[in-house]
Amino acid sequence: MNRRIVVTDGLAKEAILHLKNQGYSVDEISFSKDEINNGSLRDYDAVIIRSATKLDKIAIESNSEGKLKVICRAGVGVDNIDINAATNHGIMVVNAPSSTTQSVAELTIGHLLSCTRHISRGDRLMRDGIWAKKELRGSELSGKNLGLIGYGRIARKVSHLAIAFGMDIHAFDPYLPDNQFEGITKHETIDDLFSKCTHISVHCNLTEDTRKLIGEDLINLMPQLGADGSNCGRYLVSLSRGGIVNELELFNCLNNEKLTCAGLDVFEIEPVLKNKLLNCDNFIGTPHIAASTVEAQIRVGLESANQIITSLNGELPKNIINKEIFD
Amino acid sequence: MNRRIVVTDGLAKEAILHLKNQGYSVDEISFSKDEINNGSLRDYDAVIIRSATKLDKIAIESNSEGKLKVICRAGVGVDNIDINAATNHGIMVVNAPSSTTQSVAELTIGHLLSCTRHISRGDRLMRDGIWAKKELRGSELSGKNLGLIGYGRIARKVSHLAIAFGMDIHAFDPYLPDNQFEGITKHETIDDLFSKCTHISVHCNLTEDTRKLIGEDLINLMPQLGADGSNCGRYLVSLSRGGIVNELELFNCLNNEKLTCAGLDVFEIEPVLKNKLLNCDNFIGTPHIAASTVEAQIRVGLESANQIITSLNGELPKNIINKEIFD
Repeated sequence: MNRRIVVTDGLAKEAILHLKNQGYSVDEISFSKDEINNGSLRDYDAVIIRSATKLDKIAIESNSEGKLKVICRAGVGVDNIDINAATNHGIMVVNAPSSTTQSVAELTIGHLLSCTRHISRGDRLMRDGIWAKKELRGSELSGKNLGLIGYGRIARKVSHLAIAFGMDIHAFDPYLPDNQFEGITKHETIDDLFSKCTHISVHCNLTEDTRKLIGEDLINLMPQLGADGSNCGRYLVSLSRGGIVNELELFNCLNNEKLTCAGLDVFEIEPVLKNKLLNCDNFIGTPHIAASTVEAQIRVGLESANQIITSLNGELPKNIINKEIFD
Repeated sequence: MNRRIVVTDGLAKEAILHLKNQGYSVDEISFSKDEINNGSLRDYDAVIIRSATKLDKIAIESNSEGKLKVICRAGVGVDNIDINAATNHGIMVVNAPSSTTQSVAELTIGHLLSCTRHISRGDRLMRDGIWAKKELRGSELSGKNLGLIGYGRIARKVSHLAIAFGMDIHAFDPYLPDNQFEGITKHETIDDLFSKCTHISVHCNLTEDTRKLIGEDLINLMPQLGADGSNCGRYLVSLSRGGIVNELELFNCLNNEKLTCAGLDVFEIEPVLKNKLLNCDNFIGTPHIAASTVEAQIRVGLESANQIITSLNGELPKNIINKEIFD
């Protein structure tokens, strides 16, 4: 058979072993942009990428005149792949969307609790020799309204966890039919959502519609008191994609304490080496690790491997992004 | 009536207002140890303390020859009060145990998630200009065994939250009857509990039996893999009382990575100004803030005020610690 697969951004060793056991030859190589634009992927039947490898139009066109039949995103977001270019050249794009849901949802609650209870700040102050017990009074998640921007797979899992804490769930998602909001409060506009929620978590994709969607105007709408009447403050977390939250306006809202605290796992420019947000005491940053758990990476790897195997066997994989290549 | 109450460690303003509305005179004064030992509390009918004021035998004896009839601990732990001395002098001791349950349980999950997902460490590294995405791979709570030392009110709430995350709950509590462990796994010995659990949370009281109870010997028993077979690491958190976890041995276990990460909200010596644990990258410290939320402090204040009102009216308060004063 001699089918060759290249893994450019790493993959769980369990998944690579699985592919090799199925008779595939697997190379693990990180290519530079120039190497890709010079056709490094041409001799492979499939490439498995994560978020680091960018497959824009030029990259895809440069590799379309060879064996390449499948691009697999080992993860969820395919905004680093030019789907139209892939479709035009008959290259299938697949991803592994369900493998990371639990990990992202757990870190979302982790960010919310770190915000409401000043965990990272308390730890930092203690390391500086400051016992700030009195200054670090927090608030409970219980009894508050959690607003979810986007109500897909991850937001639903967050909703399940937050309900256990005693939160009331509100969501805005214009792409979902009404029957998908069972047990929670659906909002028709994002303004309406912000005006009801002291706690906001962002779970939508980055598109031209959502770029810099969340800024000062919306944050200004958030209520002064929690749904239970307590003076709990206002919180925003995002583990979706950088660029949906307007970072400059977020900085202003943290600085003037319109927001009590905010947590981001994703940033407009990554990797972050310098960012004004990191000067704010009431900010928590993590380096895009929402899907980075041993469990999720094994699941992502195996799901990706199986998508590739199915595709190269000429069958229809479950998570195909550009079904239209068959039109 | 002219009944006088003194509040020595602060109390929610809502509670002080409630007492005043009921006709009590309320002073808010922080006394030094010397002032207390010189009888500063003698002219009050009741004193409301938190953890800062220590009412040892001498303090109680120095104030027993006056009006003092009730000591109220606005919170749970009464280890700062010599109960025997109070009983011997006919002074009632009450507390407000249920008000803080939700807050402590939420911070417990917050500490667990900060540990398993390296939230505080990621934030610290980002502030130092380091994007440690690859180094900060975490693990999911889902599918793991959580071991609870003590299975009282707070541990049960933690259990409820952890179950939502997909954890299996194990507990050791020699003081509870068998029928109190419904839906979870009861362990007969603490060794047995540690040998089954990759995640441990401490919820017992500090007594002579529990002092330095948790150290290297027990940590050495923790399994190498999670209950779901994943290489998740080993975690310990405590928000109960300082001194139950042996800090020197905890430091060793963090240093040699027998523990992947640990989180403490309580310490052998408080306030902490210097502590070797704070040199560990894989440690998270918070300054005894588990009960410090706006919601819990209002509930604690009102519950305390009502305990005092009931007692001074000659009725039996719900949360009396030393019922034997009536013997």
